[in-house]
Amino acid sequence: MQDRAPMSIQLFHRLISYLRHMKQLPPTQETVSSTTIATALGINDVQVRKDLALVSDKGRPKIGYALKDLIVDTERFLWTDSCRDAFIVGAGNLGKALVSYKNFAQYGIKIVAAFDCNPSLIGTKIGDVQVVDSKKLANLCERMNIHIGVITVPAEAAQETCDELVKGGVRAIWNFAPVNLQAPDHVVVRNEDMAASLAMLARMLDESLMKYGM
Amino acid sequence: MQDRAPMSIQLFHRLISYLRHMKQLPPTQETVSSTTIATALGINDVQVRKDLALVSDKGRPKIGYALKDLIVDTERFLWTDSCRDAFIVGAGNLGKALVSYKNFAQYGIKIVAAFDCNPSLIGTKIGDVQVVDSKKLANLCERMNIHIGVITVPAEAAQETCDELVKGGVRAIWNFAPVNLQAPDHVVVRNEDMAASLAMLARMLDESLMKYGM
Repeated sequence: MQDRAPMSIQLFHRLISYLRHMKQLPPTQETVSSTTIATALGINDVQVRKDLALVSDKGRPKIGYALKDLIVDTERFLWTDSCRDAFIVGAGNLGKALVSYKNFAQYGIKIVAAFDCNPSLIGTKIGDVQVVDSKKLANLCERMNIHIGVITVPAEAAQETCDELVKGGVRAIWNFAPVNLQAPDHVVVRNEDMAASLAMLARMLDESLMKYGM
Repeated sequence: MQDRAPMSIQLFHRLISYLRHMKQLPPTQETVSSTTIATALGINDVQVRKDLALVSDKGRPKIGYALKDLIVDTERFLWTDSCRDAFIVGAGNLGKALVSYKNFAQYGIKIVAAFDCNPSLIGTKIGDVQVVDSKKLANLCERMNIHIGVITVPAEAAQETCDELVKGGVRAIWNFAPVNLQAPDHVVVRNEDMAASLAMLARMLDESLMKYGM
């Protein structure tokens, strides 16, 4: 429908939830409408109609969209078509969990190597993914033209890891370490602070307890 | 300063980054100002001043805030004082990573038990945390008065897990499975879709490549 323009986080998350909903529908279902999606997800249906109009112009009044087509169009709208390779640094439990996570492929992203400085991990495999010595990080980023790096090392090693990724030409960093990283302006950093997320949930819980009672 | 009111996600994330920044400052530093925080984090300093005014009224013109006091006040503003107990369901790599994550305690949250249906995991320990049979989930939630549940089971088991948590009286669910959960209105659900987060980063990367070139 349109060229890639900056998309708000809110729109992005709504589209993801529509996509999830559509994929959970029975395979026999042929059409889907903004109203049924809105009802199922408890979202305002004007909002859903507006969002879907960005994604596809194939909606028909009173009928809605062909389900399969809308799934394809939503995915195309959300993701770049080409598959992207990423490196992950830190092969502990979280690194292992992310490497094993099957859904990345579905979203067009592939973790092609894991890095660690622990000699007992170097040379092992997580599924199909080799664990490589962290010393080779910058060099391999450059040689393999990797643009995405995921940091799952402890806090104290995160800045150094970030520096190596930047040195290797990485342009987007997904950081799980609970520190603010210093990176040049042309590098996108997305922080994933697990503890803060859970704490945010605890706050939302307080608000819900106030609203609905214990 | 004020009673707990609903807080925007944006404010929440800004406060978290101020807190991280303050904790990374050298321990010899005695004061901190909205201007220095704004400069270090590349945020507008009017915004920082406004945010900090919500957190503390102890700022002094030209001097700023006593660093230690501002850390304590920010933490108090962000988290409830009491420690909260949570259950996690799914003791795979991600479950293990979350249980082992040290920062939850710092934010006032404690994962007190993990649940799994895999007989080879039941009875084992992750650090200090016991892995318990999932069959006991609802019952133990109720008996131990647990309000927070974390779901790290595969997609196909997520709804059933959610139902059990709700049955046990859980009021806030942190869901890592890539499905839309059905939960009653009085239960807060926070979805953590890892693949979507990484895909969002890939989109931000596209935008950065357009802006700054390859």
